[in-house]
Amino acid sequence: MRLARVAHSSGVSFVSLEPDPAAPGEKVLAVEIDQHPFGQPSFTGNKWPMADVRLIAPILPTKVICVGKNYAEHAREMGGEPPENPVIFMKPSTAVTGPNVPIKLPSNSERVDFEGELAAVVGQPCKDVPEARGNEVLLGYTIANDVTARDQQQVDGQWTRAKGYDTFCPLGPWIDTEVDASDLALRTELDGEVRQDSRTSLQQHDAGALVSWISRVMTLLPGDVILTGTPSGVGKMEAGQKVSVSVENLGTLTNPVQQA
Amino acid sequence: MRLARVAHSSGVSFVSLEPDPAAPGEKVLAVEIDQHPFGQPSFTGNKWPMADVRLIAPILPTKVICVGKNYAEHAREMGGEPPENPVIFMKPSTAVTGPNVPIKLPSNSERVDFEGELAAVVGQPCKDVPEARGNEVLLGYTIANDVTARDQQQVDGQWTRAKGYDTFCPLGPWIDTEVDASDLALRTELDGEVRQDSRTSLQQHDAGALVSWISRVMTLLPGDVILTGTPSGVGKMEAGQKVSVSVENLGTLTNPVQQA
Repeated sequence: MRLARVAHSSGVSFVSLEPDPAAPGEKVLAVEIDQHPFGQPSFTGNKWPMADVRLIAPILPTKVICVGKNYAEHAREMGGEPPENPVIFMKPSTAVTGPNVPIKLPSNSERVDFEGELAAVVGQPCKDVPEARGNEVLLGYTIANDVTARDQQQVDGQWTRAKGYDTFCPLGPWIDTEVDASDLALRTELDGEVRQDSRTSLQQHDAGALVSWISRVMTLLPGDVILTGTPSGVGKMEAGQKVSVSVENLGTLTNPVQQA
Repeated sequence: MRLARVAHSSGVSFVSLEPDPAAPGEKVLAVEIDQHPFGQPSFTGNKWPMADVRLIAPILPTKVICVGKNYAEHAREMGGEPPENPVIFMKPSTAVTGPNVPIKLPSNSERVDFEGELAAVVGQPCKDVPEARGNEVLLGYTIANDVTARDQQQVDGQWTRAKGYDTFCPLGPWIDTEVDASDLALRTELDGEVRQDSRTSLQQHDAGALVSWISRVMTLLPGDVILTGTPSGVGKMEAGQKVSVSVENLGTLTNPVQQA
C-alpha cells in the first residue's frame, strides 16, 4: 500500500493511493483512510482524483531520529571513517515539511546542504527490538532530505541547530508499506544534475539494525521517523534551485529552495 | 499559579495546586483544570486532597531542547570554556518522566550522571522571539534532571544516545507560572549530600535569551521544554541512590535510581 496524507477541500486525511479503475496505469485515486493508518486501516468511502488534492508530509512524527555517517563514502567526504556503531541525533518535529514545499534558507548560514536519505517509519510502539526483527515494527518507508546548515554544524559540534530549522526535514511523497529497502538505488538531483548516486545496500547498518539500536535507547512510537543516513555527494543549495531525492520503487521527493 | 499533572482515581488531569481553605499553610488541594493549562485556564470544579493523587510529569512536551555548557564552571569541569553562543541539543520526548519515578540505568553504561537544571516551559506557539521578549512566551518554570550516560556521550560525539534513554528526563514537581527565574539558588543532592550548588544568575545565557535563540531556529509549541543547562558538580549515580534537584521557590524534584 502507498500511504499518503493529503490536503483536500474539507481538511487533511490519510489516504491510500490506488489506481483509478476508470484509467488504471494512468490515473491515481486518493482513497480516504478512517482516522489513522496504523494496524489494519479502515476506509471512509471518500475518494478523490489526485488533481483535487495536495500531497503533504505523509506523517507527523513525535520524533525524528537520524543516523550520522552510515555510508562509508560520505563519512570519508566529511573527513573521517564510519563509526563502528550508529551515531544518532535528532531533528525537531517542527522541521518536517512535505513535498513541493520550499526549503527556507536561514539568513545566518552561508552553506545549506541537501542530504538525500531513505527514511523508515515506525508502525507500532516498541522498545528493545531484536536486530532480526527490526523490520517487523515498521509501517514502511519514505524519502527524506536531511537539510543541514553545514557551517553551523561545524561551529556548534552538536548538530541540532544546523539540522533543526523549520522546513529542514522534507518527507514524502508517500509511505510504501511493502517495499524491500535492503538494496534500492538512491539518487539526489540539484536542478536536474545528479549529485548523489548510491544504493541502500552500501549502508553500514541497515534499517532493521538501526531500529534495533535506537529502540534499545528510547521507546519508539507509531509514526516516528528514522532517517537512515546520506551517501556521498552532499552539497550546497542556492535559493531558486530545486532539489529532488529519488529512491527506487519509492518515488521522488522534490522541494524548491528559497531564502527565508 | 502552580500547575501540575496528577494521576487520580479516574484518570490524569492538569491541576492548580492551591492551599486547602480548611487548613491553609498545611494542606494543599489539587484543583482540576478543564482540558489544558494554556491561555486562561478554566476549572471543572473537581478538587482532590494531595493524599488522593500522584504528581506525574507536569507536561508532555512535543520537544525537549537542551543547552550545553551554559554555566562557565561546568564548561571548565568538562574540559573546555563556555561557547560564545548557546549550543543546543535535544532529548526525545519519550525520555520524560515524573517526580519519584525511578531513573533506570542502562546496563551498557559504566557512568550515568545527574545534571540538575532549571527548565522553562513554553506557553504559546512562537518563532523568532526577540531576546527582550523571551520570557513573555513562557508558561512558567519547572525543574529537570538532564540524566547523561557520560561514557556514551564521549564515545558518540553527538549526545542524543547518551541523554536519550527512557527516564533520562525527570521533570517536575510542578510548573510555577509566576516565579522570576533570573537569580534562583539551584542545588542537587545525591543521597542527601550536596553535589551541585549554584545560582541561575551564573548562566551564560538566561532563559529569555535561550528562548529567543532557539526560536530563531525552530517553531516552539505550547508545552515544549527548554533545559537551561547544568552548573558544575555533575557526578555519577548508582542504583539504590536517590537524587534531588531543588530550585529556590520552585520546589524539589526527587528520583530514585535503579538498574534497568
